[in-house]
Amino acid sequence: MQFASDNSGPVHPEVLTALTEANRGYQMAYGADTQMNEVRDQIRGIFEAPRAAVYLVATGTAANALALSTLCQPWETVFCAPVAHIHEDECNAPEFFTGAKLTLVPGGDKMTPDALRQSILGEGNRGVHGPQRGPVSITQVTERGSVYTRSELQDLCDVAKEYSLPIHMDGARFTNALVALNCSPAEMTWKAGIDVVSFGGTKNGLMGVEAVVFFDESKAWEFELRRKRGAHLFSKHRYLSAQMAAYLRDDLWLKSARQANANCTHLAEGLRATGAEFLHEPQANMIFARFPRRQHRRLHDAGAVYHLWGDTLDGADDDEMLACRLVCDWSIGTDQIDRFLSLL
Amino acid sequence: MQFASDNSGPVHPEVLTALTEANRGYQMAYGADTQMNEVRDQIRGIFEAPRAAVYLVATGTAANALALSTLCQPWETVFCAPVAHIHEDECNAPEFFTGAKLTLVPGGDKMTPDALRQSILGEGNRGVHGPQRGPVSITQVTERGSVYTRSELQDLCDVAKEYSLPIHMDGARFTNALVALNCSPAEMTWKAGIDVVSFGGTKNGLMGVEAVVFFDESKAWEFELRRKRGAHLFSKHRYLSAQMAAYLRDDLWLKSARQANANCTHLAEGLRATGAEFLHEPQANMIFARFPRRQHRRLHDAGAVYHLWGDTLDGADDDEMLACRLVCDWSIGTDQIDRFLSLL
Amino acid sequence: MQFASDNSGPVHPEVLTALTEANRGYQMAYGADTQMNEVRDQIRGIFEAPRAAVYLVATGTAANALALSTLCQPWETVFCAPVAHIHEDECNAPEFFTGAKLTLVPGGDKMTPDALRQSILGEGNRGVHGPQRGPVSITQVTERGSVYTRSELQDLCDVAKEYSLPIHMDGARFTNALVALNCSPAEMTWKAGIDVVSFGGTKNGLMGVEAVVFFDESKAWEFELRRKRGAHLFSKHRYLSAQMAAYLRDDLWLKSARQANANCTHLAEGLRATGAEFLHEPQANMIFARFPRRQHRRLHDAGAVYHLWGDTLDGADDDEMLACRLVCDWSIGTDQIDRFLSLL
Amino acid sequence: MQFASDNSGPVHPEVLTALTEANRGYQMAYGADTQMNEVRDQIRGIFEAPRAAVYLVATGTAANALALSTLCQPWETVFCAPVAHIHEDECNAPEFFTGAKLTLVPGGDKMTPDALRQSILGEGNRGVHGPQRGPVSITQVTERGSVYTRSELQDLCDVAKEYSLPIHMDGARFTNALVALNCSPAEMTWKAGIDVVSFGGTKNGLMGVEAVVFFDESKAWEFELRRKRGAHLFSKHRYLSAQMAAYLRDDLWLKSARQANANCTHLAEGLRATGAEFLHEPQANMIFARFPRRQHRRLHDAGAVYHLWGDTLDGADDDEMLACRLVCDWSIGTDQIDRFLSLL
Repeated sequence: MQFASDNSGPVHPEVLTALTEANRGYQMAYGADTQMNEVRDQIRGIFEAPRAAVYLVATGTAANALALSTLCQPWETVFCAPVAHIHEDECNAPEFFTGAKLTLVPGGDKMTPDALRQSILGEGNRGVHGPQRGPVSITQVTERGSVYTRSELQDLCDVAKEYSLPIHMDGARFTNALVALNCSPAEMTWKAGIDVVSFGGTKNGLMGVEAVVFFDESKAWEFELRRKRGAHLFSKHRYLSAQMAAYLRDDLWLKSARQANANCTHLAEGLRATGAEFLHEPQANMIFARFPRRQHRRLHDAGAVYHLWGDTLDGADDDEMLACRLVCDWSIGTDQIDRFLSLL
Repeated sequence: MQFASDNSGPVHPEVLTALTEANRGYQMAYGADTQMNEVRDQIRGIFEAPRAAVYLVATGTAANALALSTLCQPWETVFCAPVAHIHEDECNAPEFFTGAKLTLVPGGDKMTPDALRQSILGEGNRGVHGPQRGPVSITQVTERGSVYTRSELQDLCDVAKEYSLPIHMDGARFTNALVALNCSPAEMTWKAGIDVVSFGGTKNGLMGVEAVVFFDESKAWEFELRRKRGAHLFSKHRYLSAQMAAYLRDDLWLKSARQANANCTHLAEGLRATGAEFLHEPQANMIFARFPRRQHRRLHDAGAVYHLWGDTLDGADDDEMLACRLVCDWSIGTDQIDRFLSLL
Repeated sequence: MQFASDNSGPVHPEVLTALTEANRGYQMAYGADTQMNEVRDQIRGIFEAPRAAVYLVATGTAANALALSTLCQPWETVFCAPVAHIHEDECNAPEFFTGAKLTLVPGGDKMTPDALRQSILGEGNRGVHGPQRGPVSITQVTERGSVYTRSELQDLCDVAKEYSLPIHMDGARFTNALVALNCSPAEMTWKAGIDVVSFGGTKNGLMGVEAVVFFDESKAWEFELRRKRGAHLFSKHRYLSAQMAAYLRDDLWLKSARQANANCTHLAEGLRATGAEFLHEPQANMIFARFPRRQHRRLHDAGAVYHLWGDTLDGADDDEMLACRLVCDWSIGTDQIDRFLSLL
Repeated sequence: MQFASDNSGPVHPEVLTALTEANRGYQMAYGADTQMNEVRDQIRGIFEAPRAAVYLVATGTAANALALSTLCQPWETVFCAPVAHIHEDECNAPEFFTGAKLTLVPGGDKMTPDALRQSILGEGNRGVHGPQRGPVSITQVTERGSVYTRSELQDLCDVAKEYSLPIHMDGARFTNALVALNCSPAEMTWKAGIDVVSFGGTKNGLMGVEAVVFFDESKAWEFELRRKRGAHLFSKHRYLSAQMAAYLRDDLWLKSARQANANCTHLAEGLRATGAEFLHEPQANMIFARFPRRQHRRLHDAGAVYHLWGDTLDGADDDEMLACRLVCDWSIGTDQIDRFLSLL
């Protein structure tokens, strides 16, 4: 009963098989492997973007920080949600790589066009004194498990474009959002106005691979230099390529995300039936719910693993409602979910 | 006939097996995996350093840049050889992570104590105007395939310690040097005076794992923050741990390096017999040799892969001696070497 | 009728005289001038801090950014008010010099102990993932013309100390606050718990000199290196020293600030009499007031210079209340103020 | 008898007068002062560059570091002489502002075109692995008192332009070189191929003002942001403008530099007559000479102030030749020089 994170589960067996296959013979190092050619073609095809520049790195923080640094000058500010991963969970990596600061757009984990516009208007109007307006970073799936609709993305991008600001998508859970929206990668990105995507694989069955996809290839060489300077260029790069190639082959990425989301729906429905309250309506593979301490205790004692969310198991009041976060990846079995629910 | 780099070869099969075994069930993310406990114990045991702080990253450049940044202030200068990897091959990553500059100690790829002392004396004597003296970085195996003897290491460390400077060892080919010297890891590091080691695995059969070992654990927390801020902390960290654990189990690391060095010796003896000249005496798994263009042409036509070293295959003079670099990893078979030699 | 900024007025004549006197003969460069010895003694005396480390720079942004960088690690966050100069008006200089980020403590321009505590508790509780807790920066006089009382300062410092955080005071208008509180520099700083002060001179009659005062002298050498590396060490440093020495001699600093505050009080009383509304109660030398457009028009036409505050002179409604900022320095004459008031 | 540095002498009286004149009334802050308009016109006129972007900062290190950062990306390397001020005397400020590294062109303090070409060829040929080729920085007057001829400058710029590299001139002693060459500012800069000049004033009679002149104005806004972010934008900017305006008015800059160079020539001739040896032939206002310890002792005892150059006054051998540096500014009187010479 492991619901702590989509970082805790195993790698998809097909990915391990692909690593074994990639292990034959010799390959040029540093991204010149033949597997990378396949990956580049796959991603360009999937995104309907035949000229996109495509790169692989091993961590989501690297993808975000390097992508943003390529969109940004050190005297600018990046607009993002107050709970964005780049703000809360990357230990100043975005600031390190960009040199810039982050402006937190007031509101919840989903930015609204109005709040974004107000934040943009609040910066860049003091000549050289304030930071200049920089890129907008949108997290899809959001940190609270919500999914921006296509029109919400379009509206945010429209505001950014009005001020000529580039737009980054932190897609650590890109595919979970994609299958939730049931749209195409192009529709969820460049057709809405996104310029660069951190296209996550690690949370969806890879060992540690994220692609960075630039729809404007003019930044390609700069990104390559930034990746190397950030120490994020792998010598034995073929093992990143092989993972991503397996991920995109035969719809493994889509199947895994669909499974994760279905697991989440199953769990959410069960929770709802027991009377749990939801902090956010689950739309992808994460649940933020509140139910009584006694239930948390029972789950805990039975070995369920997940994070309480600002609350603590200790406390006398058995009826007190405690918030928690439950994350499902592709590997969680229905039996585990059912066992979890049966304990409530 | 692949002699381009020890980055071009495959991962050791036992390492792949270990990844498959590590793929069972759930593990806490971000280095809290149980496999990392094993790795920590292994490395502390191997280095006879029960309190050493041990961390894993995925690239050699990350290991070097993060280790140096922990030893260094941004107003200091790092002393290294003019051909050091940190100077020539890391696209300013050390400067990015440290903020400092590099002072190139005049000479070849092996620093001498006298040259190091002169370089140290040449800095840090201009008050706030010049950079302050910072760490010394020693590459073992050197970039030209030489190995510092224990007493050479001792002498360099003595000079550094005389000026209270910390010492880093870039051990991308640590084990190749170790088996060449036939000494213990402790003797090649902290007993000589080394403070921090980049303990490489990638060039010796891993997919992409390097350990950073601090003999002074007081820097541990700072390193952890720097690693995260540099986007080098893996979420699914267990797959780094599992590789390193397999590497250190049953002497795989030592066996692989012995094989690589033996391959190199075999190749070097063959080259010597054909009259090749050596730019440096091969002492580990790299050869820098010079032989006639006609022989390079023949090898090239037969599919041998390696780098010419400042020379070019084009040219009319068949007798001209062209320099090249030949690198052997553990996976090169004797048959390949013999075929290579037979073509000379 | 110049109320745009305390940066717009002239230098005090005594300061110019001091520059002329300092212009005799030769002096060692880079802070080794004899005048600096006088300044060091003056500041240590004034602050009752015989071991304080004292340095001069030429801009307030340099004083703040260098002081904070000495208190801070690049993986930390600086706590400050949302309207702090370091956040809004320094074009990412604090981020550039510290490498850190800023956490905006919710509220107005005065931080409250509760809000500060909540902000501190909101950071530094996510292991390596979030930024670590760094220094607190307090602006005295605040950006909206308020003055923290001694007990307010004490309470903020107590919160910071509870979490072992160092405390910086941005004292660009230090003396205006000091004379408003009628306390000693020691009481307004280290006795309350402040560790480092940006002790401003430029806004109070100097040409461009700010002192940075460290009550803990252990950071002295680091600051000197940071100042030089930031290109803020003056070669002909005696001309900074001479200004500061003249400023502190014969109470010029106190007299100027008292005059500025008195000018402000006179202006505020006049405004109040005309029915103006105050956004903040003026406590030092700045007024944020609201009065009808027709009055602003009249002042504008008569040549009064000041900034509207988020409003614009254009507009049909003559009765609309427009906000503005009015700043008084020492040089504003009563006649100018009276003329201004007569136009209302 | 002050020959320690051209930073030790006084400010030209006309400059002080200009400060007093500038002290009347109010001026917009942060470079919007009316005096800056005059300065801009003066510098554009002097350089025959009607569209040049012109900025003022207060230190030579700021001028160099900010100018280079505008020409340079953080993954590049700056080519300069091994004794360049940016390498030896700025405590990593260029590295801090640019993020880049410095490549020291082998040779003395004057770069030769051949050595520059070799250094350029030695970088930028390793794909993403090495630093990319960045700007060339030429010091005129050199750190050893030599002056590049116009054709030498042209040849260096030609090499740089061949590789499309931008060129910076560190002109801390610009005017001393100019009057030595007896050419126009345009001839010594953009006509030869220089893109940006640090046009020094501080060493030639100002209190602390250097102009940065971009012949390509497309970098203007970036420079303004970098200057503010570096904390180098003065609020009471008029006092920088007033100094520079006075400097350029009525040929004060040229007269002062001519006087300094003439002082130097007079001193050099006297030294030569006493048998002193010259390490470099003096061409502007600096002398590097060697004469017996006994003479140094006598000068020292009589109160002469200057730096020995790698040697020390202590020592038994009165006949030993000790090297020293002697710098003349405009303010050194003939009587001081004659007294100095009479002691030899």
